[in-house]
Amino acid sequence: MRDNRARRRAGKMLVDGYRETRRAMESGLEPTGVYVLSEETRPTPGPQESAADRDWVHRHAGAALQTVSAAVMQKIAYGQSARGVVAEFQAPGGDLSSLTLPSTPLILVLDQVEKPGNVGAAFRCADAAGVDAVILTPAESDRYNPNAIRSSLGAVFTVASAVADETDARRWLRAQGIPMFAARVESSRPLWATDLSGAAAIIVGSEALGLGDRWDGPQGDVQGVHIPMAGQVDSLNVSVSAAVLLYEAARQRRH
Amino acid sequence: MRDNRARRRAGKMLVDGYRETRRAMESGLEPTGVYVLSEETRPTPGPQESAADRDWVHRHAGAALQTVSAAVMQKIAYGQSARGVVAEFQAPGGDLSSLTLPSTPLILVLDQVEKPGNVGAAFRCADAAGVDAVILTPAESDRYNPNAIRSSLGAVFTVASAVADETDARRWLRAQGIPMFAARVESSRPLWATDLSGAAAIIVGSEALGLGDRWDGPQGDVQGVHIPMAGQVDSLNVSVSAAVLLYEAARQRRH
Repeated sequence: MRDNRARRRAGKMLVDGYRETRRAMESGLEPTGVYVLSEETRPTPGPQESAADRDWVHRHAGAALQTVSAAVMQKIAYGQSARGVVAEFQAPGGDLSSLTLPSTPLILVLDQVEKPGNVGAAFRCADAAGVDAVILTPAESDRYNPNAIRSSLGAVFTVASAVADETDARRWLRAQGIPMFAARVESSRPLWATDLSGAAAIIVGSEALGLGDRWDGPQGDVQGVHIPMAGQVDSLNVSVSAAVLLYEAARQRRH
Repeated sequence: MRDNRARRRAGKMLVDGYRETRRAMESGLEPTGVYVLSEETRPTPGPQESAADRDWVHRHAGAALQTVSAAVMQKIAYGQSARGVVAEFQAPGGDLSSLTLPSTPLILVLDQVEKPGNVGAAFRCADAAGVDAVILTPAESDRYNPNAIRSSLGAVFTVASAVADETDARRWLRAQGIPMFAARVESSRPLWATDLSGAAAIIVGSEALGLGDRWDGPQGDVQGVHIPMAGQVDSLNVSVSAAVLLYEAARQRRH
């Protein structure tokens, strides 16, 4: 299951850490296994493990809870950092049709963002800024990669999300009447001159490739927006771009 | 020189990559050595190497330019990724007195931010948002750690910076008449209700520790400010927090 391809083919996900496992369970997912260390072999809790989260998970895991030895935990935990618990879940499906939105939704589209750390960090920003749903377009975007889960602090579970290719996502957003705003350095409209106070889908691309000519074209249904850059660097990290755009939307939408 | 302690004791820094080396040289620093691969041993340029930057560095390096073998480059380059050039510089001093500021400066204070990746990412945001100077308070903050240089895309050279402890930095900012704003989750004032349109120093703490009771106390010269968080995560990455605050300042400061 630690092999990403095998995991995705099986429709499974593995969650490390009590906080993350709790957020997954609170989002309504049922673990098929919750593997924990016995009290004796439990390491001194690190700053990332809260006793409250641990107790909550133990109380709610029911029959899925299983105690394993430190040696087994070492094998199943992700990377170097055994976090006291590994939980296995059926990965949520994530069709566009599964999303239920409020009347003026704020949506983040991660277009072909592949690095799990970037996907996770963007979800963390989306959660904080009050995003209603994240849409990921394919390539290798994987919400349930262990690094994505970790970087998100579990926000991949707290924010609704769906996976769809550009064409389908665009058609769906248009059908929902949600204006689309694509973050492009070459756009002439700065974010401060962009009305993000209503329903809005903000589209950011991968750091290396940007959006290129994706989310463009003759339909004219996608407006460009750029983040003014005063210095010498010519790009921002994808989660930073997302945060700056989403917080400007949040500012305009408050009250 | 790849030993961080030895490097800092010697007051040296090593810069990997042509873009970063160029930014260091353009900021006025003179390399004491620019080690490059010969044409024959040069790898196919990666997306991070631009021919323009390479030519610029070769043209301006003067007597410091030295060709080395691939084996030597492998030894002196940082990590796995030989980037075609390693340049050695005397590290800039960085006293507060070295900073020259415009009439309404925007300053970012990184309080005890230690992870080099976070330091670098914050410099990258500072450059983009138009920050006039970054002040780092000690602990292990190191602007010229190879990871900080890389994460900043060279912005550690394009934005003026200084190192000072909290007491000195605070006294200096007060003497310059620059209002101080400390990012605290527990502050009752959201950033949108904070006047950042004039001179301002924005203080962010390390992700794990936050500011705690630092930049607080009876003087009452530091105002708290918080970034509203709508979801379940209770903190943002330090560079994301810095970017959201700095871009709100930038928005308020535009004409």
